[in-house]
Amino acid sequence: MKKYAVIVAGGSGLRMGAALPKQFLPLRGKPVLWHSLNTFLQAWPDLEIILVVPTDHLPAGRDIVNTTSDPARIRITVGGETRFHSVKNGLHLISEPGIVFVHDAVRCLITTHLIHRCYEQALEKGNAIPAIQPIDTLRIETPDGSQLIDRQKVRIIQTPQTFYSDIIKKAFEQPYDASFTDEASVVEKMGVVIQLIEGEATNIKITRPLDLLLAEKILEQRML
Amino acid sequence: MKKYAVIVAGGSGLRMGAALPKQFLPLRGKPVLWHSLNTFLQAWPDLEIILVVPTDHLPAGRDIVNTTSDPARIRITVGGETRFHSVKNGLHLISEPGIVFVHDAVRCLITTHLIHRCYEQALEKGNAIPAIQPIDTLRIETPDGSQLIDRQKVRIIQTPQTFYSDIIKKAFEQPYDASFTDEASVVEKMGVVIQLIEGEATNIKITRPLDLLLAEKILEQRML
Repeated sequence: MKKYAVIVAGGSGLRMGAALPKQFLPLRGKPVLWHSLNTFLQAWPDLEIILVVPTDHLPAGRDIVNTTSDPARIRITVGGETRFHSVKNGLHLISEPGIVFVHDAVRCLITTHLIHRCYEQALEKGNAIPAIQPIDTLRIETPDGSQLIDRQKVRIIQTPQTFYSDIIKKAFEQPYDASFTDEASVVEKMGVVIQLIEGEATNIKITRPLDLLLAEKILEQRML
Repeated sequence: MKKYAVIVAGGSGLRMGAALPKQFLPLRGKPVLWHSLNTFLQAWPDLEIILVVPTDHLPAGRDIVNTTSDPARIRITVGGETRFHSVKNGLHLISEPGIVFVHDAVRCLITTHLIHRCYEQALEKGNAIPAIQPIDTLRIETPDGSQLIDRQKVRIIQTPQTFYSDIIKKAFEQPYDASFTDEASVVEKMGVVIQLIEGEATNIKITRPLDLLLAEKILEQRML
């Protein structure tokens, strides 16, 4: 089965307080994005990557691609107005049927193990959305204040969100809706049942300087 | 106004895969619990601490108290069957009216700044529950699968959960209920409106080896 990873590096990085968007910040000597690309390249020798970057950062994206072990397997396209439009641009480059992983470039600690598990479940059930359980107590705002949520039932959603290509391509033909916060929500809108799979605690999203520190520590431990 | 911190170090630490409960693990040369005690001691010169530890770890708890800057301001009592019972044991030692902070011993990166803000709000509104916004997409399990939650409305609850002593003491006279996951839920059961306040991203709970790595990095940064 053909395998495609659409890696979305579309964020403006405003939360980091840095000039560079967070996917370009260095992590143990390589940009955050490089780590994500590298792990997907390692997952299978025939997996193809479609990298979606903001127009302004196309040259920076190309430079990073050229430092990976296999630039020939990576195509680049530009992002759109929202994440939905960026992913849609990426999906346009998929021609053959297969399994599609949509991944946040800033989840740069993704492992080949999780990628393989998502693949197996998507093959069997049509999709695989990695998720972990929250550790903390959660509340939800109500008109009068807030109320407790049963955290046993809550799942924190990660990526790669993984689908059969025909399902996700069809889903992205729907008109844009503000409720589309991730790919699962787009596919679900078509009536498809979302299939959660156990994610990884270390599969963190680099959004704050704090996360970059944590990512460094995790990588140091993996080297041991 | 009198100030009391009930610091709950009741966890068995099973999640860490270590022999010692996580509040006794070292973090930059001092036990996790020491860091929590130290910050509360620094918050005000007259704040009193009531430390709640599991019976088996009473000697270890005493040893740590004796390495703090002011052991005379710390009393120790033993934990109960659940967190509710542990906190209740701690509250028994509060004799004068005042403001009570109930804090997880494993949230050892708490700052005096957050403690002071909780105090101010509790004085004004009767309680203060620190909370932060989730960064990730969240779903909730349903009988048919799962559905998206509006994360803009969700808050991740932290400690110190802060109350007027008469309110929290009265709340803990209620019979135990399995829905009591934190002190706010106990107080809320009496019909009191919970007042959230902005928490701190670095106010993490040490529950996994990963968290200890992150805590080290955060402390290193604070030293700079």
